[in-house]
Amino acid sequence: MSYVHGYDQRERERLHDQAGTLVELLHGDTSYPAGARVLEAGCGVGAQTVTLSARSPQARFTSIDVSAESIAVARKRKLANVEFRRADLFAMPHETFDHVFVCFVLEHLEQPVQALAPLKAMLKPGGTITVIEGDHGSAYFHPDSAAANEAIQCQVALQRAAGGNSLIGRQVYPLLVAAGFGDVAVSARMVYVDSSRPRLVDGFTRKTFTAMIEGVREPAIERGLITAERFDEGVRALYRTAEDDGTFCYTFFKGVGIN
Amino acid sequence: MSYVHGYDQRERERLHDQAGTLVELLHGDTSYPAGARVLEAGCGVGAQTVTLSARSPQARFTSIDVSAESIAVARKRKLANVEFRRADLFAMPHETFDHVFVCFVLEHLEQPVQALAPLKAMLKPGGTITVIEGDHGSAYFHPDSAAANEAIQCQVALQRAAGGNSLIGRQVYPLLVAAGFGDVAVSARMVYVDSSRPRLVDGFTRKTFTAMIEGVREPAIERGLITAERFDEGVRALYRTAEDDGTFCYTFFKGVGIN
Repeated sequence: MSYVHGYDQRERERLHDQAGTLVELLHGDTSYPAGARVLEAGCGVGAQTVTLSARSPQARFTSIDVSAESIAVARKRKLANVEFRRADLFAMPHETFDHVFVCFVLEHLEQPVQALAPLKAMLKPGGTITVIEGDHGSAYFHPDSAAANEAIQCQVALQRAAGGNSLIGRQVYPLLVAAGFGDVAVSARMVYVDSSRPRLVDGFTRKTFTAMIEGVREPAIERGLITAERFDEGVRALYRTAEDDGTFCYTFFKGVGIN
Repeated sequence: MSYVHGYDQRERERLHDQAGTLVELLHGDTSYPAGARVLEAGCGVGAQTVTLSARSPQARFTSIDVSAESIAVARKRKLANVEFRRADLFAMPHETFDHVFVCFVLEHLEQPVQALAPLKAMLKPGGTITVIEGDHGSAYFHPDSAAANEAIQCQVALQRAAGGNSLIGRQVYPLLVAAGFGDVAVSARMVYVDSSRPRLVDGFTRKTFTAMIEGVREPAIERGLITAERFDEGVRALYRTAEDDGTFCYTFFKGVGIN
């Protein structure tokens, strides 16, 4: 499995923009008590960790990622209550945590239910797991555009080819239940953008979603999923939805379960 | 333009179920002050009128519909603060209202912006218009199913053939702006359903959305949009999303503008 988004500078900026505009929507209701030990699995470059740790200054975070490069970038953030560690989820030392947090990770895994097992094993009885995922099937917009939908489908196909599932948001509930968590509660966090919300137009429609789709231009064309002309037409159509009479919709799903 | 849903008994029950489970989501933030005169345009059989008038008991509603049959059914509700009247939006007597309310109506009109003009003309300066619409492009579910999506597309195609647009929800913002209303504010009202929400599983997934799709079975097959087998497969797949590990998503859009 390879990480479909890549690790370049632009991607780092995109993840930063993404975290910046979605903070309240995604993280506003997550905070951990003083002294709680929290495992953040798949922290990447720490884009979510900044918010997560700031909202729970008295909790202690262990934020792991399998990519040494990402962890190196994450460590530069110098977050007082976070230990960034390069680690594989499936080869963690015997450690237990009060809570587990997993954001934008299951979408990249071939067997998400199985990936939840080691997390459950590290969680103390009564501890919570929080899972946040997007769902590219939740993207729709005005003006509608077949080319834009085809460009989005390239991202979906590439992620599937890499062993992931970019339509996983709608499955957070059954995944957590199948993994054995109790009292599972999932809520949909919809981002609705029109020109009365200029911060979201720029921060979400342009710099988060459309930038992510633009990011798969080369592999999509190389693999023959689409022509360069059609892809570019699709991306222009996505930018078109950021104009005054355009609208854009996307939904994230946040689930909490108890061990 | 013909009303794609038809006017039979089952449809009346469906609209009633729909209104019953969505009341808080759609109407929870709408109430009008004592003495306010409110025009409800396109009230149909009064499914929304029940809630609307109950939430603003001191306001006076004039609820109109072009269908005499619907108005006859609506009048049986005997709502004290509502005058049901058979009337054509484009041929109303000279009357003015403090507020206008339009729910699930624009989706049926060929020229929604133009339809808003007579409403604006009847609205006093400073009065509000409230518009609520669904968007069938916002429907997605788990397990995903190509057949289910094809069955939904039949409804979209039939409504388009009848001069309507069942993907209009995402356009409420630009429509209200184009019609000349000010301070337009649109919010997305997403219905997320999983088996931890049994009332919505039954009331929305089964009895509202899937029942509506089932309702177009005959015209869809008659017009050769789909085979009977494929349509039925799609409907079964929609009912499948109501099982324990299924999820269902749909979004309504509510917009308010000022004259």
